[in-house]
Amino acid sequence: MKNPPRPAQGRPQKGAPARRKPQHEAGYENLVAGRNAVLELLKSGRQADTLYIASGQRNGLSAIITLAKEQGCPVKEVSAEKLDAMAGGVRHQGAALTLPAAEYAELSDLLELAASRGEAPFIILADEIEDPHNLGALIRTAEAAGAHGIVIPKRRGVGLTAAVFKSSAGAAAHLPVARVGNLVSAAEELKEKGLWLYGCDMEGGSWHSTNFSGGVVLVVGSEGRGISRLLKEKCDQLVSLPMLGKVNSLNASVAGGIMMYEIARQRMEAGAGR
Amino acid sequence: MKNPPRPAQGRPQKGAPARRKPQHEAGYENLVAGRNAVLELLKSGRQADTLYIASGQRNGLSAIITLAKEQGCPVKEVSAEKLDAMAGGVRHQGAALTLPAAEYAELSDLLELAASRGEAPFIILADEIEDPHNLGALIRTAEAAGAHGIVIPKRRGVGLTAAVFKSSAGAAAHLPVARVGNLVSAAEELKEKGLWLYGCDMEGGSWHSTNFSGGVVLVVGSEGRGISRLLKEKCDQLVSLPMLGKVNSLNASVAGGIMMYEIARQRMEAGAGR
Repeated sequence: MKNPPRPAQGRPQKGAPARRKPQHEAGYENLVAGRNAVLELLKSGRQADTLYIASGQRNGLSAIITLAKEQGCPVKEVSAEKLDAMAGGVRHQGAALTLPAAEYAELSDLLELAASRGEAPFIILADEIEDPHNLGALIRTAEAAGAHGIVIPKRRGVGLTAAVFKSSAGAAAHLPVARVGNLVSAAEELKEKGLWLYGCDMEGGSWHSTNFSGGVVLVVGSEGRGISRLLKEKCDQLVSLPMLGKVNSLNASVAGGIMMYEIARQRMEAGAGR
Repeated sequence: MKNPPRPAQGRPQKGAPARRKPQHEAGYENLVAGRNAVLELLKSGRQADTLYIASGQRNGLSAIITLAKEQGCPVKEVSAEKLDAMAGGVRHQGAALTLPAAEYAELSDLLELAASRGEAPFIILADEIEDPHNLGALIRTAEAAGAHGIVIPKRRGVGLTAAVFKSSAGAAAHLPVARVGNLVSAAEELKEKGLWLYGCDMEGGSWHSTNFSGGVVLVVGSEGRGISRLLKEKCDQLVSLPMLGKVNSLNASVAGGIMMYEIARQRMEAGAGR
């Protein structure tokens, strides 16, 4: 008896995701290319990281762009050459979608995790970190220091790419990462819930004499520019590490890590009744 | 009156360094290729980082290899294809030499720097760090935390490459970096001078209840394996950071940075008479 014919050419396959080609170096390990594949994936409701469209090829992509925007997926326009390289030989027809290496959480998930543990919230707000090593290391340290999650912006900085996941040593699978449209609004929302915002900055109080009791949001600035002005204005307090040599700043993930462990230390001591 | 002819074809040029081709990705920005160029550079007494020789091309390279060994320059054998790629089109004749992005210091220089500042020595011993980002970040944090230098091994781990220099944000130009043939011997030498060895390890005492007074050597292990067994046995004390989540280790440069700032904090407080 012959096997029934496989519906390889049939209609149901039309919108199936295009085969993915690993592109370790570029960090686009989870990329779906081609108009139908992108459209079907967006329709499926699965979380997408970023929609990339080729410059000058918006014609015919309006349905895709509208759907992406409805779902809060950032849309980036790149050159056709860049998209060719990203797609690694897959026919992209001007559209490709990257998938996050782990699911994004909502801001409320972070607060709920803290509540479920009976702890005051401890949240990291990472302002436009661009280096996957740095975001990965921040996630790894936050998870180890007992934080309840990390908040990153949608439009700037790196998302939960495969490179970030790898640099986090897998911590991104355990620590909720919320991606928000506007970090300043997220900061306001957290302040309204009674959390205090501490910004890592050159011009702040000493890190180890700062009182981090209660619900804490630690704001870590980007590698080059530090915390953006609007976000810095929202901070209740700025906190500094002394620079005892000639360099005037630390790597973002190292500075963030030192602050996180000072917060962890104070919380552990408070928990121990001191 | 005519200018004197330039000795472009004359003898003195024979041994001049070959033109260098920047190879940012590979980290070989400071590479000199070709037997004469390599030999002359070694003769000049200028510090070299590593001598690379192509497998199966040792014939005719014995003078170069002997000179490199005499000067304590590590010799690595690589495939001819790898050397081709490193040299980026320059004719290497089986030999190439990388130059450090900054001069290496001697172990004694680190102790002298501490003495000149009237401070108890504070030295980082980095055990086989392989990632240039991590070594660069360790150098940057050490410089900012007031350390007097960092010790790295000659044969394993990354040296002072251009990528490390860049990741250090220039701190490698300010902080003495000593490269030693044997880290265990260096550790013994520092202990004989009265310094205490503290190893960052999973199985140690709590970082903030550890007394770091006096001359301190902080031993930071490699990314995957931690501190090597022989070196760990030399440590007077092992120090740990609590892991409050599911991951069981931190990035080497973050863990080292947290420890360095705890040491800096204790030293500042001691200096303030507390």
